[in-house]
Amino acid sequence: MNAESIRKLFEQVRRGSVSPDDAVARLRHMPFEDLGFAKVDHHRALRAGMPEVILGQGKTPSQVAAIFARLAKHGGNGLATRADSRQFAAVRKKVRAAEYRELARAVVLRRDSTIYGKGIVAVVSAGTSDIPVAEEAVVTAELMGNEVEHFYDVGVAGIHRLLASREALTRARVVIVCAGMEGALPSVVGGLVGVPVIAVPTSVGYGASFEGLAALLGMLNSCASNVSVVNIDNGFGAGYVASLINRLP
Amino acid sequence: MNAESIRKLFEQVRRGSVSPDDAVARLRHMPFEDLGFAKVDHHRALRAGMPEVILGQGKTPSQVAAIFARLAKHGGNGLATRADSRQFAAVRKKVRAAEYRELARAVVLRRDSTIYGKGIVAVVSAGTSDIPVAEEAVVTAELMGNEVEHFYDVGVAGIHRLLASREALTRARVVIVCAGMEGALPSVVGGLVGVPVIAVPTSVGYGASFEGLAALLGMLNSCASNVSVVNIDNGFGAGYVASLINRLP
Amino acid sequence: MNAESIRKLFEQVRRGSVSPDDAVARLRHMPFEDLGFAKVDHHRALRAGMPEVILGQGKTPSQVAAIFARLAKHGGNGLATRADSRQFAAVRKKVRAAEYRELARAVVLRRDSTIYGKGIVAVVSAGTSDIPVAEEAVVTAELMGNEVEHFYDVGVAGIHRLLASREALTRARVVIVCAGMEGALPSVVGGLVGVPVIAVPTSVGYGASFEGLAALLGMLNSCASNVSVVNIDNGFGAGYVASLINRLP
Amino acid sequence: MNAESIRKLFEQVRRGSVSPDDAVARLRHMPFEDLGFAKVDHHRALRAGMPEVILGQGKTPSQVAAIFARLAKHGGNGLATRADSRQFAAVRKKVRAAEYRELARAVVLRRDSTIYGKGIVAVVSAGTSDIPVAEEAVVTAELMGNEVEHFYDVGVAGIHRLLASREALTRARVVIVCAGMEGALPSVVGGLVGVPVIAVPTSVGYGASFEGLAALLGMLNSCASNVSVVNIDNGFGAGYVASLINRLP
Amino acid sequence: MNAESIRKLFEQVRRGSVSPDDAVARLRHMPFEDLGFAKVDHHRALRAGMPEVILGQGKTPSQVAAIFARLAKHGGNGLATRADSRQFAAVRKKVRAAEYRELARAVVLRRDSTIYGKGIVAVVSAGTSDIPVAEEAVVTAELMGNEVEHFYDVGVAGIHRLLASREALTRARVVIVCAGMEGALPSVVGGLVGVPVIAVPTSVGYGASFEGLAALLGMLNSCASNVSVVNIDNGFGAGYVASLINRLP
Amino acid sequence: MNAESIRKLFEQVRRGSVSPDDAVARLRHMPFEDLGFAKVDHHRALRAGMPEVILGQGKTPSQVAAIFARLAKHGGNGLATRADSRQFAAVRKKVRAAEYRELARAVVLRRDSTIYGKGIVAVVSAGTSDIPVAEEAVVTAELMGNEVEHFYDVGVAGIHRLLASREALTRARVVIVCAGMEGALPSVVGGLVGVPVIAVPTSVGYGASFEGLAALLGMLNSCASNVSVVNIDNGFGAGYVASLINRLP
Amino acid sequence: MNAESIRKLFEQVRRGSVSPDDAVARLRHMPFEDLGFAKVDHHRALRAGMPEVILGQGKTPSQVAAIFARLAKHGGNGLATRADSRQFAAVRKKVRAAEYRELARAVVLRRDSTIYGKGIVAVVSAGTSDIPVAEEAVVTAELMGNEVEHFYDVGVAGIHRLLASREALTRARVVIVCAGMEGALPSVVGGLVGVPVIAVPTSVGYGASFEGLAALLGMLNSCASNVSVVNIDNGFGAGYVASLINRLP
Amino acid sequence: MNAESIRKLFEQVRRGSVSPDDAVARLRHMPFEDLGFAKVDHHRALRAGMPEVILGQGKTPSQVAAIFARLAKHGGNGLATRADSRQFAAVRKKVRAAEYRELARAVVLRRDSTIYGKGIVAVVSAGTSDIPVAEEAVVTAELMGNEVEHFYDVGVAGIHRLLASREALTRARVVIVCAGMEGALPSVVGGLVGVPVIAVPTSVGYGASFEGLAALLGMLNSCASNVSVVNIDNGFGAGYVASLINRLP
Repeated sequence: MNAESIRKLFEQVRRGSVSPDDAVARLRHMPFEDLGFAKVDHHRALRAGMPEVILGQGKTPSQVAAIFARLAKHGGNGLATRADSRQFAAVRKKVRAAEYRELARAVVLRRDSTIYGKGIVAVVSAGTSDIPVAEEAVVTAELMGNEVEHFYDVGVAGIHRLLASREALTRARVVIVCAGMEGALPSVVGGLVGVPVIAVPTSVGYGASFEGLAALLGMLNSCASNVSVVNIDNGFGAGYVASLINRLP
Repeated sequence: MNAESIRKLFEQVRRGSVSPDDAVARLRHMPFEDLGFAKVDHHRALRAGMPEVILGQGKTPSQVAAIFARLAKHGGNGLATRADSRQFAAVRKKVRAAEYRELARAVVLRRDSTIYGKGIVAVVSAGTSDIPVAEEAVVTAELMGNEVEHFYDVGVAGIHRLLASREALTRARVVIVCAGMEGALPSVVGGLVGVPVIAVPTSVGYGASFEGLAALLGMLNSCASNVSVVNIDNGFGAGYVASLINRLP
Repeated sequence: MNAESIRKLFEQVRRGSVSPDDAVARLRHMPFEDLGFAKVDHHRALRAGMPEVILGQGKTPSQVAAIFARLAKHGGNGLATRADSRQFAAVRKKVRAAEYRELARAVVLRRDSTIYGKGIVAVVSAGTSDIPVAEEAVVTAELMGNEVEHFYDVGVAGIHRLLASREALTRARVVIVCAGMEGALPSVVGGLVGVPVIAVPTSVGYGASFEGLAALLGMLNSCASNVSVVNIDNGFGAGYVASLINRLP
Repeated sequence: MNAESIRKLFEQVRRGSVSPDDAVARLRHMPFEDLGFAKVDHHRALRAGMPEVILGQGKTPSQVAAIFARLAKHGGNGLATRADSRQFAAVRKKVRAAEYRELARAVVLRRDSTIYGKGIVAVVSAGTSDIPVAEEAVVTAELMGNEVEHFYDVGVAGIHRLLASREALTRARVVIVCAGMEGALPSVVGGLVGVPVIAVPTSVGYGASFEGLAALLGMLNSCASNVSVVNIDNGFGAGYVASLINRLP
Repeated sequence: MNAESIRKLFEQVRRGSVSPDDAVARLRHMPFEDLGFAKVDHHRALRAGMPEVILGQGKTPSQVAAIFARLAKHGGNGLATRADSRQFAAVRKKVRAAEYRELARAVVLRRDSTIYGKGIVAVVSAGTSDIPVAEEAVVTAELMGNEVEHFYDVGVAGIHRLLASREALTRARVVIVCAGMEGALPSVVGGLVGVPVIAVPTSVGYGASFEGLAALLGMLNSCASNVSVVNIDNGFGAGYVASLINRLP
Repeated sequence: MNAESIRKLFEQVRRGSVSPDDAVARLRHMPFEDLGFAKVDHHRALRAGMPEVILGQGKTPSQVAAIFARLAKHGGNGLATRADSRQFAAVRKKVRAAEYRELARAVVLRRDSTIYGKGIVAVVSAGTSDIPVAEEAVVTAELMGNEVEHFYDVGVAGIHRLLASREALTRARVVIVCAGMEGALPSVVGGLVGVPVIAVPTSVGYGASFEGLAALLGMLNSCASNVSVVNIDNGFGAGYVASLINRLP
Repeated sequence: MNAESIRKLFEQVRRGSVSPDDAVARLRHMPFEDLGFAKVDHHRALRAGMPEVILGQGKTPSQVAAIFARLAKHGGNGLATRADSRQFAAVRKKVRAAEYRELARAVVLRRDSTIYGKGIVAVVSAGTSDIPVAEEAVVTAELMGNEVEHFYDVGVAGIHRLLASREALTRARVVIVCAGMEGALPSVVGGLVGVPVIAVPTSVGYGASFEGLAALLGMLNSCASNVSVVNIDNGFGAGYVASLINRLP
Repeated sequence: MNAESIRKLFEQVRRGSVSPDDAVARLRHMPFEDLGFAKVDHHRALRAGMPEVILGQGKTPSQVAAIFARLAKHGGNGLATRADSRQFAAVRKKVRAAEYRELARAVVLRRDSTIYGKGIVAVVSAGTSDIPVAEEAVVTAELMGNEVEHFYDVGVAGIHRLLASREALTRARVVIVCAGMEGALPSVVGGLVGVPVIAVPTSVGYGASFEGLAALLGMLNSCASNVSVVNIDNGFGAGYVASLINRLP
């Protein structure tokens, strides 16, 4: 413990075994982490139930397995996003309790199932192709101790499907909205609810969607004031931010 | 008349004053316009009630006035888009019957008020700042002989305002939708009606709207299949296309 | 039927088994769909002969087959765009009547061959590489009950080929123009005809075509006023919009 | 009241003066707003202390004054963003209680000063040029009933200034971070706190900042998972989202 | 022959078997090609030695072979650009005289080896990776009847290599310069010679070269006034333009 | 004269007043210009009738006048492009013979009116707004000793106007085509003529023209092989390149 | 002094007036700056002769004057970049010794004229329009204690002018190269010298220069390995980096 | 040797076997390289220990091997960047002493291990995915005779890890910082050290990172004045520039 090493230094000063001038010099050479302990403590409290996370994409199965196994030793929940079935198979050999959430392309290790969230996190998506991103948000929010409800295939061109769910939506404490193509859904949802909306542009589309750029720009320009945005396809980030909001005491 | 000069050539051949070979050579050197008369006739029929149009933007008041006066001699309707009040004043001195439509920033000369359109052209806009573009579409469609209804300030973040007009909207034969910022409105309207929707992105917005680019991309990626798009702020073009559709026999 | 459940509520009120106040409360909790029946009826009328559509791209053969079979049960025409031959083979096993239109990369189920369109839909394309997109438009328009004529390989650098077809083109009630590279063809065609032109930029080209962006920008800036634009490579959308226009009574 | 008109309909049915079938027909023609009352009620509850807002930019002083005066009649707080001193002068003549917050370029009408927020909203900015955007966020959050603390001129190139405030920052319930140029500050702040961070890219910078694009992209790619982003220079939006988060019960 | 059918019409008029009015009517319905013969004749003269060209990229070997064989029947030179060895093998089976220029990725059929050019076409390239594009220009210019000299690997960072060739360069009648990365070479070459320079940006590079965009923009902004530019990697276009210039009488 | 100073060095060596080793050392320290004389001579021959040129834009009237007067001392033609009437007034005071070409926004000093060009330079433009750029090309080509013909207002949406000029166009030895908006004109012209076409995108347009980007991309992707491109609005560059081509012996 | 306050804490512990545990608690609440003193000392040593800097652009004359006067109290050199003559007049009233470097648009206060640099900083620029940026680099480097030589108007299209200076250039210890338009100069200079080259793209140009983007991309893709790049028009940054390099012991 | 051939010419002049006029003519035709010898000598001195370099990417194993073997004959160090294990295997067969640095994807031939650098080159990277680029910089700097220290995984979202290394960092003479995603790290490092920082944006990231563009723009807009930037993923360039700086006498 860092405070301890500093306390020891003060003890030595008090006992006279170290002079104040020498103590100043020693303090000066201590690494930053020893000084910044307040922050660490503070975070530890907040982090209960937070999963350790790795991005599977671009890593070999054995790399994912090795990192996942190491993180699993911390004792909490674990999450590998954008992971395929071969990566999962490798993880499984090392961490028996790991599960694969296929739709979300996520490897999941759930040990702590306490509900830390104060309300419901709603996850809304426009088209069926947006579901993998939406599910990544769902898995992340669940692992972080939230009750999650999802509303899929409620794109703006069939507005009645969305409106049919408006009662349920207004019960959520925070809403995640995933949409590709024109990315219009967060604006409409934002107008229906009075809580924060996290918008996730997806790379779904072709041509002038420019890999999600159209949806991203649309969401940033939302005429609904309660919308903020994360990176294209960043279901994890949306789930993370929504969880923090929902866990606020 | 072109046909006349060609007919004369045939007469000369018939009379023997020109040989067939010489006639072929003469024909070869006639300008295209003399040959292509069919097209001109064909278009004249379609053009009844079509306004002669000038873009006021970037021209001096006297230039606008001079061109407008020249076009006015053709006898039909006249339209100067993106015109300011000084340009109008200059036009007014030369063309007494010209009027100024301030909201639309348009100078209008209406002589032919026949209704050529088969149904209603609906013009929908998202925010109050989109109204100048919407009004340009309205003026254009009216001058081209259409009955026009407008639905303003029905942006997607307050979807109930739009839905309140859905009955009226479904009576239109073609719908123009103007929206800036995220440009989501055409998708929602497209889902509510079963007729062609002409989407007009506007340059309304700031930051990541990039002068209308966000709205443009959004509309091009619309998940509603009945949407096609014109240039940013091109209210005139939308009014023109909608009029053509509405005038189809 | 939704009207029925509401009518029942009124019956109960009339019979006195439900008080007006309770009825208001019950109404308040009915899902939107129960209330919005007007819209659904209205659309059903318009939708005669409209195909049910799926985007094949990015789906496995078995997914395409499953969705196609489900849609086929609705009884009308069916269409899977951007489908390859393996996807077709899978569909064929489940839906015997399905056919593969190879040039258009489309799986087609045609049961209703009524002609709903009032005139001819012309489909024009610039180069041979634009044909798959043009054919997607052709197939879509045909399935939606239109008479279609196509004019291929009439790019602007050989303007005489296009001009040779101008008489035929002017007979169309709506024209679709597909072009990649500089995307100039819609402007030229737009000047030759007096009807609405739907422009489809294609991703054909290399280098500074930026996957169709050059053609898209060119078409949006068309100096012909009767041109509106759909997304890059969106032959389906163009066929759909053109069909709506052509079916207008 | 909408519920009232519906209740009357039920009364008439009960009394037998309207048959159930006629009632269904009448209901069918009622505007959407009459049916959707649930939503309105729901929102009214959430909206306590929410300011009515207008964007001053691009409006004349008399337009701003007229709209502001109209909104002021609703009885709550009022806010005109991106307003200059001439616009304020015009408002002042109509609404005596209005004040001008020069740094924030905002006209403010504060009648309800209840604190609705549960904790502190921290507003952090990188350079002195970012202050107008930051102040817009501050004013918005204050008008929405939050306790706000600001930390200015703590850019990442002088990281010690930011670190000097870390204790204070960790006390916030939600943090807004405004930065132009490279937009790096939200990532660093995001790593220091365990609560949601709303990042606001500003258009401060020149050359390759491309009017805030560099900062926007940087923030969207933040390696800190607790960051979400609003539009360039959108201090209002950040203040609004942060307020919603802070008011969550 | 078109002139023939028109001559026949005049003959009929002369013989009195067709009246002048009927002749005008018949002429009106003749396709454009029948009228526009002047252009065709004119071009034929210019086209001596011009190769028939196909773009191999994106076509199957059998498609390339079929088109190439058809073009070969015209009797002149033939060229398939961006062709691989499998495409060549297919062509070879049908057109024995075809050869493969590997560096240029071109299938070549040379029957007319007349020199039509008035001087030398110089082809300069910056790095070894630019050679395929440069060779495409070389092959094109050679097939079009030009004497070609090439100067490879003379990039601007080793300016002495380029300067060592300045005497030879100044002997050229037109210069093609191919360069990727920063695309600076055409400016330097443009300053060394007094003749037209055709600049070809190549997609060589990585990162901020953005597939040749950096080179393209650089060349368009060349401070040398004698530089014009073709599309990224368009060695064929550069060779074609240079040939036209060099063949000018 | 440079050759002279080197010849003197050799003389000294021959006379024995400088040893070979010293001569090598002296040569080593001579500035490059002394060595590179061949190039200068070579260029002087080519430069007969070439105007000295300054870009007026961004300079004060007195700056333009001073530079123009200095260049005028060289004895040949002079040209200041993008110059306004105030700049011209200042030039006029110092150089009596200077004239102002208003449409071209150019200050011109013509002393050498020899015709150096071998044929006609044709300058074609799409719309009236493109004329300033086209006129800049005209003035440049005239000052460089070319016979110039212009064809204005022949945009592609009215293809018959262009076709009416095709005979005249085919007489040109090189063609300059200026067009804004979709930039389609060079492709059509390129297909009509058999000579080099220099395309000049103009910044005419709005919205998705992005200050000429749409036209630029369109021209770079031209399907006509005889087109090369210069920078947006660069009428001077096009006139310069066309002149070089036309002057080729 | 910070160390002092910490030393005092140790003294109190030694004297027994503060217990070790209390000391830890107090330390925990000290601001970071009190702990991070090592860094400050370290920098102070390096900073000798470094100017205090403000960006004049976007500030009022009185703001610039106030900040400049405050910085002037620190006793070293002072610099206000992108300052106009009105800003200078305001500064002059408060700081008599301030001078205005007009070409560089800089207000300069030079008190320390020690030469800290080990060699020569060369500043090269392509065109006369690049000189303001180049002069900003010159002023910065001079104020930071360097000997500076400049080489102006040595653009790549007249390569002989640059080569004429190559001997002088190779004497520099670090080279700054400023260029707009195609930004090719750093690559050529990079090939001529063996020392670090700092490239500064300028916004000089028009059309496809896109406000300096073309030059920026060109420089980032330089084929010379000794080139690194700063922001568009960032003469100050280049002067700063070059100074750091030149001052390295 | 070049000087030699020139000296011979002077000898012949001195002996009278060549007249001064003939000598001038001969000199005029000598290639530039013969004249520019000064530069070559100059560079040779600087180049001690500089590796000969090839870019492996896009070359076949046998091409890489052939070039590497040829360069190896020059006797110094050799480097093939972006090389895979198959390329290494091919090189190994020809150059026994070559080694493969897997993390850096580099083939290395180290014969000269003299330390030419005056101090330490520090290489810092943000995330584990940035390591290949960082290692390319490390290998380059080592091969160029520098002592290198690396600091990996010190991204800005965990600022304490970076701060823990600040003492070590401040000992470096030049610092390379590699970061993808938001590219914020160079700004923070730049504020911690007083020496030149070379920033390397990496293509690590997804969505709105646009293959490294976000990081690149961020770094160009760094608020730390001591930062200059190289191309995306250009670890080699950064290592090269840093080495030049560190070797400055």
